[in-house]
Amino acid sequence: MNRILFRGAELDAAGRLCVEDRRAAHLLDVLKARPGQVVRLGLVNGPRGRGTVEAIAGRRVTLRWEPDGEPPSVPPVDLLLALPRPKVLRRLWAPLAALGVGRIVLVNAARVERQYFDTHWLQPAAYEPLLLEGLEQAGDTRLPEVAVRRRFRPFVEDELESLWPATLRVSAEPGAPGSMTALRRKPGERMLVAVGPEGGWTEFELRLLDARGFRRVGLGERTLRSDTACIALLALAHEVARRDGTGEVP
Amino acid sequence: MNRILFRGAELDAAGRLCVEDRRAAHLLDVLKARPGQVVRLGLVNGPRGRGTVEAIAGRRVTLRWEPDGEPPSVPPVDLLLALPRPKVLRRLWAPLAALGVGRIVLVNAARVERQYFDTHWLQPAAYEPLLLEGLEQAGDTRLPEVAVRRRFRPFVEDELESLWPATLRVSAEPGAPGSMTALRRKPGERMLVAVGPEGGWTEFELRLLDARGFRRVGLGERTLRSDTACIALLALAHEVARRDGTGEVP
Repeated sequence: MNRILFRGAELDAAGRLCVEDRRAAHLLDVLKARPGQVVRLGLVNGPRGRGTVEAIAGRRVTLRWEPDGEPPSVPPVDLLLALPRPKVLRRLWAPLAALGVGRIVLVNAARVERQYFDTHWLQPAAYEPLLLEGLEQAGDTRLPEVAVRRRFRPFVEDELESLWPATLRVSAEPGAPGSMTALRRKPGERMLVAVGPEGGWTEFELRLLDARGFRRVGLGERTLRSDTACIALLALAHEVARRDGTGEVP
Repeated sequence: MNRILFRGAELDAAGRLCVEDRRAAHLLDVLKARPGQVVRLGLVNGPRGRGTVEAIAGRRVTLRWEPDGEPPSVPPVDLLLALPRPKVLRRLWAPLAALGVGRIVLVNAARVERQYFDTHWLQPAAYEPLLLEGLEQAGDTRLPEVAVRRRFRPFVEDELESLWPATLRVSAEPGAPGSMTALRRKPGERMLVAVGPEGGWTEFELRLLDARGFRRVGLGERTLRSDTACIALLALAHEVARRDGTGEVP
């Protein structure tokens, strides 16, 4: 935990934060907090800042919050992800937030099994703690926006353009000869990475994406599990974003 | 499982493979194997090839093995990894093999806790099944070589040069301004990526690596968990290897 996050509603009128959950455990057991000590805090979807420990009573810690400048900018990369198996989805939430994704849209695809949509890992109450864990690791405060779409074609044909105007779009396809880092991103342009199911997008799905300007890229000849492929592709997208102008977009 | 792997000792004198473990389960339940069906096989550290199902008796499957050409080449990337927490190490074995690593050396570092070396995830009997799982996912047959070194400085000073002569060497450091994809790899040159513990290498350790020609690279301002950082760095190294000449080294 590199930064302890809290929600605006947790602050009292005097700007004090009082915790007695796993954050208190981290303060007491890992950071060995003592009154007067200053620790890194962050307001979810708000600024980073400092917290000064005011009081410790048993396992309850009270901190004074001081924000530090503007909220961090939204990461320049978004993800269109064919819904993976529940176990893989569960594993992905924290690293996605840690790597930095502005928006995650989970879509259906021909090779997604219908019952995957029943998993509780699609419920905000289940995945938000994992996203927060990733943000705390990375030191960010911006929760990715998450949306779920059960129909691929209507989503691509009717919603995609308005969600992602003027975006550098990439579809990942095992074995595709295109390479992510051969792409050029205009400064400030967002990047959208579409990652298919473990069996890959169908040719029909790839053509729908082609028609919306997605460039096909691969990761070599090896077939990777969805979670490994997602982390690899996001790492490459962030590398392109950093290389081609300010990585962060306000 | 994109390719079923077996050991040479499992073949009978007539070149037949007989399985009744999880590979048989995969053949019967996922591939719905029937006599005459051809499936992808691979000899561990040997060639890829085909298996023709000769007989099915209950949960026992007999296949005729036909190798197909030369063994795959060794992946062009190696990893020098400060020993992570046992839980993280366990999670890493399969993706490392899937991404493709020729050699993995697990080393001590100042910020590695001594008891990490006691984990059974450092025992070949524990990690080899996970490496095989990653190879089966990726369709490769080459088991990474694994070595464990409990002393960092003697390893770097006395062993590193002979293990990795004429190698493009990179040390990963959170926040370092250098970028992996700004490096140029000579065709055929191996790449060695040094990844520190969760708290990072110490400045002393980084200088030891500097003195051996390691170039410092970062992944941006975000702090990533060791497993996410390893996958991200290996993905970038493979991208550089593919871009700058034949990715695979015989």
